[in-house]
Amino acid sequence: MNEFDLIARLFAPLAVARPGALGLTDDAALWDDAPGEETVLTADMLVAGVHFFADDPPDLIARKALRVNLSDLAAKGAKPESYLLTVAFPQNVTEAWLTAFAQGLAEDAKIFDFAPIGGDTVATSGPFTLSVAALGRVPKGQALLRSNARAGDLIFVSGTIGDAVLGLRVAKGEDLGLSAADNEPLLARYRLPEPRVKLGQMLRGVAHAALDISDGLMADLEHICETSRMAAEIDAARVPLSVSAQKALARNPALLMDVLTGGDDYELLFTAAPAQAARLTEIARDLDIALSPIGRMMEGSPHAMARDARGELVAFAKGGYSHF
Amino acid sequence: MNEFDLIARLFAPLAVARPGALGLTDDAALWDDAPGEETVLTADMLVAGVHFFADDPPDLIARKALRVNLSDLAAKGAKPESYLLTVAFPQNVTEAWLTAFAQGLAEDAKIFDFAPIGGDTVATSGPFTLSVAALGRVPKGQALLRSNARAGDLIFVSGTIGDAVLGLRVAKGEDLGLSAADNEPLLARYRLPEPRVKLGQMLRGVAHAALDISDGLMADLEHICETSRMAAEIDAARVPLSVSAQKALARNPALLMDVLTGGDDYELLFTAAPAQAARLTEIARDLDIALSPIGRMMEGSPHAMARDARGELVAFAKGGYSHF
Repeated sequence: MNEFDLIARLFAPLAVARPGALGLTDDAALWDDAPGEETVLTADMLVAGVHFFADDPPDLIARKALRVNLSDLAAKGAKPESYLLTVAFPQNVTEAWLTAFAQGLAEDAKIFDFAPIGGDTVATSGPFTLSVAALGRVPKGQALLRSNARAGDLIFVSGTIGDAVLGLRVAKGEDLGLSAADNEPLLARYRLPEPRVKLGQMLRGVAHAALDISDGLMADLEHICETSRMAAEIDAARVPLSVSAQKALARNPALLMDVLTGGDDYELLFTAAPAQAARLTEIARDLDIALSPIGRMMEGSPHAMARDARGELVAFAKGGYSHF
Repeated sequence: MNEFDLIARLFAPLAVARPGALGLTDDAALWDDAPGEETVLTADMLVAGVHFFADDPPDLIARKALRVNLSDLAAKGAKPESYLLTVAFPQNVTEAWLTAFAQGLAEDAKIFDFAPIGGDTVATSGPFTLSVAALGRVPKGQALLRSNARAGDLIFVSGTIGDAVLGLRVAKGEDLGLSAADNEPLLARYRLPEPRVKLGQMLRGVAHAALDISDGLMADLEHICETSRMAAEIDAARVPLSVSAQKALARNPALLMDVLTGGDDYELLFTAAPAQAARLTEIARDLDIALSPIGRMMEGSPHAMARDARGELVAFAKGGYSHF
């Protein structure tokens, strides 16, 4: 299958619902703002051996690449629309692999109404590498920004935290002392994030600052502190844990550090005025997603702190926030 | 330098003129359509060892990545605005290399008023890989599409054709029998494309179909044939050659095949009604760019043909059009 066959057979069918994709037969795509809306753009690159295992199922790799971008759009309150996909395939890629990869794109196109409108396919001597540039829409001026936290805001997270980093340990063959049944949800969280697309849109006008947790809870909270020029403090004991994570931490309390600093959860971390608590309870109930208050924003030099169950500040290893 | 330092020190200064970039400190960027305009989007991925040599100067690599995208925007008649850049750096990348790379982005930001508004930086075990998703604007409905050729249109190319592919041969150490002074312009064309940004915008309302020559003259003409459902025929003898290319072909006439099928020239290939010839002469004079008629579009099954100086159809090797 050459480059053009590949695009025509595997990718173009995904683009039919987007006239601006021009059937993926042009150099470029056309994109119109809807009146009163603005476009939110985000891009993420994923490399085999870094962001996923080279032998992961190709459909899951495709879906993970889409979902980390969907998560970024969700964090801004945007409705996902379209994406450009660039991929570098190793020379030994098979048609079956490519077909399964495209199948993954098709699955999530259906779930999220998220379609390709352009891109590029090239060959590489290195690991499989893909980059997604995603586009969504938000009513003008209503995007949720990292920089918009206010002193006195409560800090919330959606869902449970730390499952992905524990899942990564399991995927690497580490024994957390859990049953296979308890490992499974952790592995699933690592392999396939669940972007909080509906939640993000419902947080418009409710949350102040927001982002998705990809670098790790503390690192991402630090991003809000830095861009909002404000301090933050969370209670580590209030960070919501899944049943599997609770069991793992009961056996090895040091894993709390993983929970606080591990990445790839793709839950939303956001701040909101305490007066929004009732509205957030409603949203949580409507979407059946836990929204847990874990701390608060306050005046002070930009820094994110965590207190343990005894009220002591948790010490983090220097540089533990960066994954580059 | 960690990921965040890298972005803050090297990339964020390039984004200051774009409020929607949010200082490159958020998950995403904001983008507004101007009234009466639409957005043109394109994406290209480049891999060391495939699209450039791993030891090419880092500033040239950066500029080439931007320029292949600028060329796509130009081919659609769009005014370039902003881009998202995702890069996978080998672990041994040095700060000096990164600084030079960013310097290349800065150079072309100045020349083309083309600024980053988002992206991602990751590590790779493989070759340096980068992907650019570029955004430009065009008055609504005026984008130049591949699919818009009409029977009877003349086929034009800008500049000269084949220099990049001959330059690649020189870069690989082949002796084309030229002097160093004659090799230089060929090498320069291969290393750093000159996107026809102003020309593209001036072709709005003048050209019917347009694209930039990246896959090769015949392959790209074939793209116009396929999307416009029409045949095309060019006179190989009318394909404009640089002085260096003329000398190379005088020594080895078989290099004509390179000229017709080699990629990476990034000249514009477009079709226009014969009645536009006078207007095109004006545009060529205003921009000081040759615009050469080399053939015509006609009814017929979608296929691009070339005739040699004796009027014989040139035979191309099967599959010679695809570079995947």
